[in-house]
Amino acid sequence: MDNRKTLTNHVRRMTESLVRMGVAQAVISPGSRSTPLAYALASTEKIDVHLQVDERSAGFFALGLAKATQQPVVLLCTSGTAASNYHPAVTEAYYARVPLVVITADRPHELRDVGAPQAIRQMGMFEPHVKYDVDLPIPEDSAAVDDFLERQIARSVGMAVTEPKGPVHLNAPFREPLLIDFEQEHPSVSFTERIAGHTSLTLEQKNQVSKWIGSSERGVLVVGEWIPGFDKKQVWSFAERMNWPVICDPLSNLRSEVPKSCHHLCIDSYDALLKTESFAVQAGPDTVIRIGPQPVSKPLTLFLKKVRPAKFIVVDESPIFRDPLGIATHHLQVNAMEVLNVEASASQDAAFTKMWSKANELASHLTAGYQSEGVHEGDFVRTLLSYLPDGSDLISGSSMPIRDLDTYFRKTERDIAMFSNRGANGIDGVVSTALGIQTARKRPAWLLIGDLSFMHDVNGLLISRMKTMDLTIIVSNNDGGGIFSYLPQASIPNHFEQLFGTPTGLSFAPIAEMYGIQYNSVSSLDQLETQLKEDKTAPLRIIEMISDRGQNVTAHRELWNAIGEELDRNGL
Amino acid sequence: MDNRKTLTNHVRRMTESLVRMGVAQAVISPGSRSTPLAYALASTEKIDVHLQVDERSAGFFALGLAKATQQPVVLLCTSGTAASNYHPAVTEAYYARVPLVVITADRPHELRDVGAPQAIRQMGMFEPHVKYDVDLPIPEDSAAVDDFLERQIARSVGMAVTEPKGPVHLNAPFREPLLIDFEQEHPSVSFTERIAGHTSLTLEQKNQVSKWIGSSERGVLVVGEWIPGFDKKQVWSFAERMNWPVICDPLSNLRSEVPKSCHHLCIDSYDALLKTESFAVQAGPDTVIRIGPQPVSKPLTLFLKKVRPAKFIVVDESPIFRDPLGIATHHLQVNAMEVLNVEASASQDAAFTKMWSKANELASHLTAGYQSEGVHEGDFVRTLLSYLPDGSDLISGSSMPIRDLDTYFRKTERDIAMFSNRGANGIDGVVSTALGIQTARKRPAWLLIGDLSFMHDVNGLLISRMKTMDLTIIVSNNDGGGIFSYLPQASIPNHFEQLFGTPTGLSFAPIAEMYGIQYNSVSSLDQLETQLKEDKTAPLRIIEMISDRGQNVTAHRELWNAIGEELDRNGL
Repeated sequence: MDNRKTLTNHVRRMTESLVRMGVAQAVISPGSRSTPLAYALASTEKIDVHLQVDERSAGFFALGLAKATQQPVVLLCTSGTAASNYHPAVTEAYYARVPLVVITADRPHELRDVGAPQAIRQMGMFEPHVKYDVDLPIPEDSAAVDDFLERQIARSVGMAVTEPKGPVHLNAPFREPLLIDFEQEHPSVSFTERIAGHTSLTLEQKNQVSKWIGSSERGVLVVGEWIPGFDKKQVWSFAERMNWPVICDPLSNLRSEVPKSCHHLCIDSYDALLKTESFAVQAGPDTVIRIGPQPVSKPLTLFLKKVRPAKFIVVDESPIFRDPLGIATHHLQVNAMEVLNVEASASQDAAFTKMWSKANELASHLTAGYQSEGVHEGDFVRTLLSYLPDGSDLISGSSMPIRDLDTYFRKTERDIAMFSNRGANGIDGVVSTALGIQTARKRPAWLLIGDLSFMHDVNGLLISRMKTMDLTIIVSNNDGGGIFSYLPQASIPNHFEQLFGTPTGLSFAPIAEMYGIQYNSVSSLDQLETQLKEDKTAPLRIIEMISDRGQNVTAHRELWNAIGEELDRNGL
Repeated sequence: MDNRKTLTNHVRRMTESLVRMGVAQAVISPGSRSTPLAYALASTEKIDVHLQVDERSAGFFALGLAKATQQPVVLLCTSGTAASNYHPAVTEAYYARVPLVVITADRPHELRDVGAPQAIRQMGMFEPHVKYDVDLPIPEDSAAVDDFLERQIARSVGMAVTEPKGPVHLNAPFREPLLIDFEQEHPSVSFTERIAGHTSLTLEQKNQVSKWIGSSERGVLVVGEWIPGFDKKQVWSFAERMNWPVICDPLSNLRSEVPKSCHHLCIDSYDALLKTESFAVQAGPDTVIRIGPQPVSKPLTLFLKKVRPAKFIVVDESPIFRDPLGIATHHLQVNAMEVLNVEASASQDAAFTKMWSKANELASHLTAGYQSEGVHEGDFVRTLLSYLPDGSDLISGSSMPIRDLDTYFRKTERDIAMFSNRGANGIDGVVSTALGIQTARKRPAWLLIGDLSFMHDVNGLLISRMKTMDLTIIVSNNDGGGIFSYLPQASIPNHFEQLFGTPTGLSFAPIAEMYGIQYNSVSSLDQLETQLKEDKTAPLRIIEMISDRGQNVTAHRELWNAIGEELDRNGL
C-alpha cells in the first residue's frame, strides 16, 4: 500500500535524522495520532524508549535525562491536551537551558480549526518558552519533502543544543491510516553530520578581561548551578592562582570533591554568614565574577545588592546575561571555562580572603554541631548528608529542600553530584526529574523533597512500572507548604492555613504500597539513622520524615542567631 | 505604609470588579507572588474560594465549576511553571467553550527576562488557546491605573462569557512586600454593570431557514453536547412538529427526561445501527440540522460523510462552525434555541422516520438484553446505568467510557445529566472536572472513568482534603489503554503492549486508603450489583471494576454482529 510506504519512509527518515543529530533517548506517552513515529522510535535500536502515561511527568523525566547528559532528548505525544501537559517541563527546560526536542503529533491541516476531536492549535503553543518551532509537512511521496524533513530535524536539534541550550518544538501531522511497515527498508539520509564550533575569547579579549580583574583587591568568584561536563578543577586552579574566595551554590557541585588545598577557598556557609549584619558590612567585594545563574541564597542576593561591587562581571553564554539584581557592570558572553583560563595578576588582599575563610569555618563548625530542642528538618538533612555514599547523586526539591541543603551541605571530598530544577524553581515534576537523572547517570540517586512537591508529581512513579530505577526518596513531610512559614504572611493569622499552609493530612505509606516501594516513616534522628543504615531492598525506597513547620522555623532562626553571636565573639 | 495601602486598594478593586461581573467562585493554588490577590479573594464574602495544590487539577476543577454553571470562574496561581500547569485545562476550556478567568501572578517588569527566580514569560503563554489576554499594570497610586483596572476586568470577564465562551488570561504583576491590610476600607468601583444582548434571527432570516428545511423529506436533527440552560422541551417540540428523528449524542442529555410522546423520535442506538451497512444505505437523510458539536460516534461520522446530505446545516454561535467532516452546506450563526423556533412546513416522509424508529427499537432491545460469554465493560456499564437514581449527574471519561455510554445509555424518563470533556477529548483532568461539577450542582454525582485516565488526575482528589464532596467513582480497570484495542494497531503484535497497552498493574485500593475513600473492587456483575445496592458511607467512593481488554473487544464486536443480523431479519 502506497500510503503506508510513504508514511514509513517519512517516520524512518525522522528517526534516522534524529539519531544522526545525537538523539539517543525518547520518552513517549501512549496515543493514537503519534502511532507511526512511536513505532519508528521503538524499533530504532540506537534509541532508548521510555514510556510514561502522564505527559506532564513524561516531560520532566525527559528533562532529567537531558539535564544529566546535556544531550538532546525526544518527547513524543499525541495531539490535543496531551501536548499542553508538556508545558511545565518545556518552561523549566527553557529557563534551565536543557535541550528537549518536543514532538507533538497532529491532525493534518484539513482537520484543524474545524471542531475535529483531539485537534487543538499546536503551532505556537509553547512559543515564549521554546527556542524554535516548526510545523512539519504531511508525509508525501516527494523528494522535496524528504530533503526538507531531514534538514529541518537537523536545524531543530542543532538549535536545541546550541548554547544557551533549550527546548524546540516540532509539530508532526499524520493522516490516517497510521500503521507503518516494519519490514520496509530504511531510507538513507543525505544530511548526515553536523559540527558546531565553540565560542572562545581572542588573545585581545583575554587581555581585556585580565585588565578587568587584574587590579582587584577584594575579588570573589560566585558559582551558581553546575553544568554536567563543567571542569571543577579549573575553578579551583583559578581560585588558587587569584587567591579569591569562591561562593559555592549547593548546585555548583563545588562543595563535593573539593581538593584539600582549596578547602579554605570553598565558601559554603555564606547563606548563614551573610545573615549577620556585622560580617556583611566588612565582607563586600570590589570585584565579582559570577559563573552560572544567580545562586539560590536570599542573604547573598541582599548582600550583593547592598554592596554593589564596582565590577560585577557576569559570565553567561546568552546575551540575556542573567542579572536579577540589576547590578551587573560587565557581561562576558562565552563559555565559563574560557574566563577561568585567563591569566591575570593576583593583587588580592590576603586579609580579605582570610576573613571569609575564617568566618566560613566558624559558621560551618557551628552548623555541623548545633543542637536545638526538638527534632527539625535541618537535623534530618544534616544526618542524611552524613550518610550519603561516595559516588551518589542528590536531587533536591526547589523550595525548602534546596535551602536546607544550602545550609547543611558542607564541603566534602566525596563525589556527590547535586541537581535541582532551578530554571523556574517550580515544585512540579521533581520526582520525574530525579528518575530521569538516575536513569541517565546509572548511579544510586537520592531525592530530598517536600510533601506538597512529592504529591504534585506522584505520577512520576508510573514510569517505575515499566523500568527499574535506583532512587531513595526522602520526603520531608511537614503537612503543607513549609516555605511560607518563613515569609511575612506567617505572622498574620488570617487565612494562613487555608491559603498557604494547605495541610493535606496525607501520609505516603499507601503510595509506597501501591507501587511496591520500600517504605519507612521516621520522626526522630535515631529512627532516621536506623533507616539509613538498613539495606535498600527494593529499587525504589521512600523514607518519610515527619516534622513540624513551626519547629523548623524556630530551629533555623536559633542557628542563625548562634552564628551571629559566634562571629561577634571572634570580631567578625 | 503607603505601598500596602496602594496594593490593598488594587487587589480589592480587582475582586470587587470580578464580583460585579458575575464571578462567584475562585480556585486558588498556594504560592507567594499571588499572596495579595489570594488574600483579597479569600476575604471576599461573595466569592467561594477553593484550594488545590496541584495547578493542573485546579484548572480542571475550575473548568468543572464553570462548565456546570456557565458562569465565569477565577483561577489564581503564583508565577512560573505554576501557570504552565494550567495549560491543559485552558486548552480544554477553549475548545469546550467554558468561561475561565485565568489570573497568573507575575513578577514586576524589572524582574522579567533577567534570570530572576520563578520568573518566566507569562504574557502570551496560552495565546492560541485563550480568547483574550492582558498584562495588568503594577499597583500604583493612580486614578488612571484604577480606572483602567476595573474596565480591563470588565472587558476580560465579558470576553469570557460572550458566546462562544472561553478562557481569558490576566497577568497580574505584584512588587514586594506582598501583604495587604485586611482592615482597610474597600474602594468603591465606578464601572458597575454590564448588559449583553443576545443574537437572534430577524423574521426574514427565519423565513429563509424555513425555506432551507421546508421541503425536506428525509430530515434528521443531530444534537451534540448539551449546554446547561439549553431547553430540551424545545428540541422535542421541534422534532414532533417536523416528525424528524433526533440523533441524540449521550452528552446531548436528550436521552434523559424524554417525554413519552417523543420516545419514538429519540434515536439513541445509532452508533450500533450505523455499523450495519445494509441499514446505513437506506437511512441517509436529505437534510440535517446539527446543533452543538459533532457527536462522539465514529459510525455516525462515517455514515454522514458517505451520505453527504444535500443540506447539512450547522447551527453554531461561532464563525468557526465546527464541521470536521467538511460536509456542511449551510451555517446558521446563532444560539440553537432560535432555529428550534422556526416555523416550517412538515414535508417529512413518514416511512423514513418510522424506519429509524423501528431499527432503533430493535437495536436498543438487543443491546439491553444481550448476554455474551464472560463479563465485560459493557455489562458493567449497563448495570451501573440501571442503578443511577433520578436526579443524579454522570460524568464520563472521554475515551472508552463515553463510547460505552453511547452504546448502553438508553433513553429514560429519569433526570440524569451527563458531562464529559469533549473540547479536546483529553484523558487528563477528568477527576477534577467531576469534582468541580459536583461542587457546582450539589447533586449526587457519578464518574465513569478508565484506569489510565483516573491515574492521570489522581491528584484531583487532593481538593477533597479541603472540602466535602459527593462523588462515586467507577474506575473501569482493564490495566491500560483500552481504546487502543479497537484500533488497527491491535492486530500487529510489535510493540503493542509497550506503546499502547501500557499496563501499569496498579490497583487503586491504596489511593482509597490514602484519601479515606470508601472502596470496593468488583469483577462480576453480581458483585457490582451488590455494591450498587450498598449504602455510600463516605463522601467519596471508588468502585473498581476489573475487566479484560480482550474480552471487552470481543463482546462489543459480538453485539454489533447480533444487531446487524437482527436488522437483516427485519428487512432493515
